[in-house]
Amino acid sequence: MKVVSTSKSHGGVQGVYSHASEACACDMTFAVFVPPQAKDGPLPVLWYLSGLTCTHANVMDKGEYRRLAAELGLIVVCPDTSPRGEGVADEKDNWQFGSGAGFYLDATQQPFARNYRMHSYIVDELPALIASQFPADMERQSIFGHSMGGHGALTIALKNSEHFRSCSAFAPIVQPMTADWSRPALEKYLGKDEKSWRAYDATALIEDGHRFGEFLVDQGTADGFLKDGLRPWLLEDACKKSGIALTLRMQEGYDHSYNFISTFMDDHLKWHAARLAK
Amino acid sequence: MKVVSTSKSHGGVQGVYSHASEACACDMTFAVFVPPQAKDGPLPVLWYLSGLTCTHANVMDKGEYRRLAAELGLIVVCPDTSPRGEGVADEKDNWQFGSGAGFYLDATQQPFARNYRMHSYIVDELPALIASQFPADMERQSIFGHSMGGHGALTIALKNSEHFRSCSAFAPIVQPMTADWSRPALEKYLGKDEKSWRAYDATALIEDGHRFGEFLVDQGTADGFLKDGLRPWLLEDACKKSGIALTLRMQEGYDHSYNFISTFMDDHLKWHAARLAK
Repeated sequence: MKVVSTSKSHGGVQGVYSHASEACACDMTFAVFVPPQAKDGPLPVLWYLSGLTCTHANVMDKGEYRRLAAELGLIVVCPDTSPRGEGVADEKDNWQFGSGAGFYLDATQQPFARNYRMHSYIVDELPALIASQFPADMERQSIFGHSMGGHGALTIALKNSEHFRSCSAFAPIVQPMTADWSRPALEKYLGKDEKSWRAYDATALIEDGHRFGEFLVDQGTADGFLKDGLRPWLLEDACKKSGIALTLRMQEGYDHSYNFISTFMDDHLKWHAARLAK
Repeated sequence: MKVVSTSKSHGGVQGVYSHASEACACDMTFAVFVPPQAKDGPLPVLWYLSGLTCTHANVMDKGEYRRLAAELGLIVVCPDTSPRGEGVADEKDNWQFGSGAGFYLDATQQPFARNYRMHSYIVDELPALIASQFPADMERQSIFGHSMGGHGALTIALKNSEHFRSCSAFAPIVQPMTADWSRPALEKYLGKDEKSWRAYDATALIEDGHRFGEFLVDQGTADGFLKDGLRPWLLEDACKKSGIALTLRMQEGYDHSYNFISTFMDDHLKWHAARLAK
């Protein structure tokens, strides 16, 4: 692991790191905030998965999580959203596929299967690195994310419920199998057989029997992607039918930007911290 | 005034606006946060001046001022740091001069005198626009800034003490006349006669009899510009000799970035809000 940069913030350290990823067969960059309480022993880990077009840097710059994470004693890990770099297959002018659009899945179709393995990266490889390099109590992990990263958080929590104490999302893509901005990506990464897509769709996973304790979801009513791309009511339906506790908060007048995320960041951090307490 | 964008944040509105500036003879862009209390009547205005290389967007994205400004009922105005655009004289590869480096002065030397009139813009033109377009109580204004913007805040407050109830700074350039990164700019904007520079140097203004009630200054000890560019002890000396109350806080381990600024943003907002109360 290489240290790209470190900077003191709210008494802790906001760092950016890179490493040669085996899962993604390329160098990957990620951000970690370590709060000041780390000097007294291992701390719980909160994973934040970002949305389409983002790198690790968007939430690090605009998410406004450090003040309260420093107070609550949470390590916050912010991975990239896809493999990147020379030799990584990409569609340069398509913001909904390739670089910045890994959809937290393991691609099976060439040429993408070589690098686009964000599910394995987030679930297996990066946690092992975090455990070895940071003062992290890996028995206490939670996960959240925004938009495509909300999709990532929900699907990863549903498939790995034993790893995460809690899961929340800002404006998540809850049913990527049927949304115009994600269907083409699923087909290119996973092939034409839609059965294989179900492992990467929160509502399909719930239909197929996966469960998680409870979800907190915030969604802005002025979000331009609400009706076609996000559609939280589909998650609400799936949760009702399956008995999963969902707190869905429709936030009047908020859009899809980090102004929305940062407004409700404190609520999510407190909600996770309560569930990550020893 | 054109609305570039608006976005709900912490119950208020973060907007970006542009207008044809007379002072700078070009279009200028600025950001304004209006907190939710604006529905109940005019609110005090806090000006934030940014540092070298910045636009209005850096502090808007990374400054983390909205949560507490929304709580305290402060309008926060974040101007650009220089004129910009086609026809505006510039030195493309020089980050310490021209675009992004207006130094909050009115240039007297050609070709810069035509556009580089940030002092008039910040002191006269933009306040008039804010007063006419926003629910602002212009009897209650305060000013702060970072680095070159800290220089701007200190010098503008010293020369316009009747306009501002309070003034603070993060890592300000306190004596630009003698610092390597600002001397060449002052010479190009103002000419070789250093007497004309004194109107844009906080320590010289104090020597020349300008006064302000009190200053709050935060400075990181790990700031790479501390010893050669910033040197807050020079302001400390000038304030001691002139009887200006200065609270200078050396913050252990903090650098020059927005991680430093955002860590102490709450302190500054509370400090100004206390002085802006009716």
